[in-house]
Amino acid sequence: MSQNTDHLIEKQLDSETVYEGSFITVTVQTVELPNGKLAKRDVVLHPGAVTVLAITADDKILLVNQFRKATNRLLIETPAGKLEPGEDPLTSAKRELEEETGYQAAEWKHFSSFYTSPGFADELMHSYIATDLTKSQQNLDDDEFLDVLHVSAEEAEQMVQDGRIADAKTIALIYWWLRERAREGK
Amino acid sequence: MSQNTDHLIEKQLDSETVYEGSFITVTVQTVELPNGKLAKRDVVLHPGAVTVLAITADDKILLVNQFRKATNRLLIETPAGKLEPGEDPLTSAKRELEEETGYQAAEWKHFSSFYTSPGFADELMHSYIATDLTKSQQNLDDDEFLDVLHVSAEEAEQMVQDGRIADAKTIALIYWWLRERAREGK
Repeated sequence: MSQNTDHLIEKQLDSETVYEGSFITVTVQTVELPNGKLAKRDVVLHPGAVTVLAITADDKILLVNQFRKATNRLLIETPAGKLEPGEDPLTSAKRELEEETGYQAAEWKHFSSFYTSPGFADELMHSYIATDLTKSQQNLDDDEFLDVLHVSAEEAEQMVQDGRIADAKTIALIYWWLRERAREGK
Repeated sequence: MSQNTDHLIEKQLDSETVYEGSFITVTVQTVELPNGKLAKRDVVLHPGAVTVLAITADDKILLVNQFRKATNRLLIETPAGKLEPGEDPLTSAKRELEEETGYQAAEWKHFSSFYTSPGFADELMHSYIATDLTKSQQNLDDDEFLDVLHVSAEEAEQMVQDGRIADAKTIALIYWWLRERAREGK
C-alpha cells in the first residue's frame, strides 16, 4: 500500500448549505481535485448512528421489521438509531436496543464503526455485539412502529440469500456472526 | 413473523423536492403513520449503485483506497459506483470493476441487493462476487483518483478489526468471503 496519499486527497474550498432538515443537512462542497481541477460534491451531513447485533441465550439474534419510508418498504434490520447530540455511542446503542426490542444486555463489545454511504453521506454507524440479554420493557418513539423477530443463524442466512434481509449493516453483522459460529464449530 | 403488516405501514400524503443535485434529489415527504398521526420524512433519492467483491486466482480481493469527500478521509472499499440511467446492474458492476481496478472477470454471481442508509436514503446497492479475473486496462473517471490493493483474507479481517476498513458494504462482503472460506476449510 502506498504511504504517500497526496495523489488522492481532495481539498475543500467552499461549502454551501442547501437544505437543513430535522436531522440531516445537505451541503454542496467545492473541492480541488488531486489534479488541480475543481469539482462539486453533494454531501449529506448526518449525526451518526448505532446498531446492535443482540444474541439471545438460545442462539438467536433480535431483528426488527419496520417500514422505512425512504425505501417505501418494510425492512428487517438489526436494531439501530441515530445518535442524540453529545451522546456516547455505547450509551446510544444500549438505549436503542432496549427501546426497540425491550431487551437489555450485560455484555457489550464494539464490532466496527463504519460509513454507510460514503459516496454522498457522512453517516458513521457504530456497531456492537450484545450478549447476556434480559427482558426489560419496549419503549418506542411516538413515530416508531416495528415488530421484533427472533432469528436463528440458519434462518438469517436464508433470509439474506432470498432477499428478505436487504440492509447492508444487518448483512455485515449476520456474516460476522456466521463466521464466528463457523470458527466455534457451529 | 406476523403476516399482517398494516400496523407498520406509513402512507405518503405529499412529497416536496427541496434540492436537486447532480445525482441525488432531496425530498421532504409527509406521511400518515399507522396511528393516524402525520409526520415529515427527509428522504434522499439516489439512482442506485453496484459493488463487487473480486477474488483473484491467488486468493486475494481487490480493494480500492480513495478519498471520500463526504467522510473527509481515505476509505478502503470494494470497487463500487453509481448506476447510470437505465443501466443493468450487472453491466454496471462489470464496468466499474474494470474502470477502477483494470480487471475483468469471467464469472459473476449476484450476492445481495441491499439498502445502505434506509433511515434517510433510498440507495439500493447491488453486490456481486467476481472470479476468474484477467488483467485489462484501468480507466478512471476524470474526477476519480484511487489506488488498488490486493488483500488476503487474513489482512482483510485484520483491517476490519483495527478500523482501517470502515465501510459497511465492504465489511459485509469480506465477512461473506471469510464465512465461505471457513466452510471450505480454509
